[in-house]
Formats: sequence, structure tokens, C-alpha cells
Amino acid sequence: MKLYTYFRSSAAYRVRIALHLKGLAYDAVPVHLLKDGGQHLQDDYRQINPSGLVPAFQDDRITLSQSLAIIEYLEEVYPDVPLLPKDAPGRARVRELAQIIGCDIHPITNLRVLNYLAREIGVPDQAKSEWYRHWVIEGLQSLEAHLARDPGAGPFCHGDHPTIADCYLAPQVFNAQRFNIDVSGYPNIDRINALCIALPAFQAAHPSRQPDSE
Amino acid sequence: MKLYTYFRSSAAYRVRIALHLKGLAYDAVPVHLLKDGGQHLQDDYRQINPSGLVPAFQDDRITLSQSLAIIEYLEEVYPDVPLLPKDAPGRARVRELAQIIGCDIHPITNLRVLNYLAREIGVPDQAKSEWYRHWVIEGLQSLEAHLARDPGAGPFCHGDHPTIADCYLAPQVFNAQRFNIDVSGYPNIDRINALCIALPAFQAAHPSRQPDSE
Repeated sequence: MKLYTYFRSSAAYRVRIALHLKGLAYDAVPVHLLKDGGQHLQDDYRQINPSGLVPAFQDDRITLSQSLAIIEYLEEVYPDVPLLPKDAPGRARVRELAQIIGCDIHPITNLRVLNYLAREIGVPDQAKSEWYRHWVIEGLQSLEAHLARDPGAGPFCHGDHPTIADCYLAPQVFNAQRFNIDVSGYPNIDRINALCIALPAFQAAHPSRQPDSE
Repeated sequence: MKLYTYFRSSAAYRVRIALHLKGLAYDAVPVHLLKDGGQHLQDDYRQINPSGLVPAFQDDRITLSQSLAIIEYLEEVYPDVPLLPKDAPGRARVRELAQIIGCDIHPITNLRVLNYLAREIGVPDQAKSEWYRHWVIEGLQSLEAHLARDPGAGPFCHGDHPTIADCYLAPQVFNAQRFNIDVSGYPNIDRINALCIALPAFQAAHPSRQPDSE
């Protein structure tokens, strides 16, 4: 199986964590978002993913984009080392936590949106930086409130083992810290992240450990 | 079961379609995004969903936000009238199509983002409107390309019956048309939407048919 990946993409990072947690070997195909005017926007990559976004996944049965769709596919095809609990409310909660990051934070703060703000609307760096901080902080506050109120929490996002929600949490925290957002004010997020990034699977998936990292 | 809903929210609209397709009776609790400074931002609603976003769902087992998490929960608890195919690649494809809308279009073009552009950055109406059009058109082009290339397509997004992807497609088209975006240039989207909106479940879920519609 192949993963089309960019070391710093938090969506690709999520999928790498899931692959490593499940112990699945894969070929990493680097797609550099900054080189060649964006390798993700070139025709050959659009043959893989017409949306021109990373990550994309390929095995002998499917060519697939969208990080959550990829991880759910891995979960169904390789159920060992489950990343979802067995009970429907637990599964729903894990998906909800993942989507708070995957729908409410990441799409509004990723590279293409920041580029559009700067290039098409002429938003100055300071306002662009405030935009990023606003949506990340609002999203982390939401995530923290959801984690804090729910008995499913702990030590990981949901229970004693990493789930899809943790595959989302660690990359989002990495991303926030890269832009100097302090997560220590979100005690559940901070604690869960520390637990995650100590695990070999999260370390192997880390941006700094990818073959395409600068 | 209860659905906290706003008639015009396309995320709430998706869940309403899923509920009607499955023939599930529910109590609609209106949460008006424009009245009272935004009823979704008030403390009593944040008790239901700390993120302050609609929709939210409640039954005797769970209080849940995020439209895809809600629909996947309904799919697991009420598997009659399935909204996902049985095979893993098919399920993955349906989730991918839904997430192209749910992650790549909707979060960047919804009310809170448009409000932030106008109020915090001072983006004029014209540029705000171009922002909306840009992301919707880019997303619809991606969706169309995915639908066009894949043999799973047709007559619905995936196969002979509506799936989760169709629950996403019709509300996104409704939203685009409300902002005068012509979808006739996207033949698969246009055709699938016409098929969907002729169905009683989609009609019952339509914004104009909600008790809170103006």
C-alpha cells in the first residue's frame, strides 16, 4: 500500500499514525506542497486525487483521499489494533472528537486558506496570523470542553488505548505549537498529547522523522 | 430522540435527511443562528454542544455533535435502510465523497467564517462573496471529478440507493444555489441532486419544510 504524503501536513500525519499503530508497512510517496509550485496541484497527482490535496492512499482495491475515510477504511480492513471502541456511543464520541479537529479547525487554518487570505484578499501577515490563532484556539477550547465533560475520557481521548481521536489530536497540537500556541491551558489536551507522543507509533509518524522532511 | 437544528444549516439538513431516509421519528429543537445574538452561542445550548454549533443529537444513550458522527451513529444503531454499502472500498468511497463536502467546502464557507471575514478583517461584501464562490466552486469541481472517474457512481453518488454521500450532496447544492452558483456545469452533481430532491425523505428534510423556517 502507498501513502501520498507531505511531512508537515497534519492530515497526512493522522493517517501515518493510524498505519503505524496498526503495524502496517506502506510506501511513502512524498508530495511537496511548496516545491514546483505545489506538487499536489500537478496533473500527475490529480490523477491520484482530483482534489489536489494530501494525503491519498492506494492499495490493490482502492485509490482514496480524505484522512478520515482512509483511517476508517484501514479500521475495517485491518481490524487488529482497533482504533474505534466496540460500543456505538463510544464510536460516535471518538468520531465526534476527531471531527471537531478535522472539520472545525483544520480546514479553516490550512495552507491553501492562508494563501488565499494573503494573495487574493491581501490580508496582512498580522491579521492572517490572528485568523489562524482564532480558529485554532476556538477549536481547542471546544475540544477541551468535550473531553472534560465526558466520562469516556482518559487516559487517552477515549479509554485506555489510542483511537482515531488521538490520531487527530497529536497532529493538531503539533501544528498549533509550530505557530506558538501554548496548549498548557487545555489540561486534557496537553495530558493526552504527552501520552501520545511518547508512543513509538506516534514518533515514527512525526513530521521530523519523514523521508521528505527538510 | 432529539435533533437540535436550524432550518438553513446544511449540516443539520444532512442529519435530517438521514433520519427521514431511515424513517426515524425525532423531536426537532430549533436553535436560531441569527436570533438573540445567536442561540447556538448561549450557555444553555453550550450545555448540549460546547462547540456552539448545530446540529446536535440526543437520545437516551448519548449527546452528540458533528453531522458525520451523528449519521454514522444512526447507521450503526438503526442499520435498516443502510446509508453505507457493505463492501469496505464502497464504504470508503461514500465517506470520501461526504468529506469532500464536509471538510473541504462547508467549514470554510459557513456563517461563522463569513462573519469573521467581515467583522474582524473588514473584508468588503464583494470579496466575501468571491471567497464563498471560490471554495464552493473548487469543492464542486473536485466532487464532480471524483464522481465522474469512479465506476461506483450512479444513479446516486454510489449505487442504486441514497447513501451518506447523497445526504451531503443535496444540502451543499441547496446552499450553493442560494448564493446563485449554477451547478448545471457539473453534470453528475446536477443529475444526482435532481434524483435526491425528488424523494420524500429529502423533501421532508428541506429547509423550507422545517417548523423554524422563516
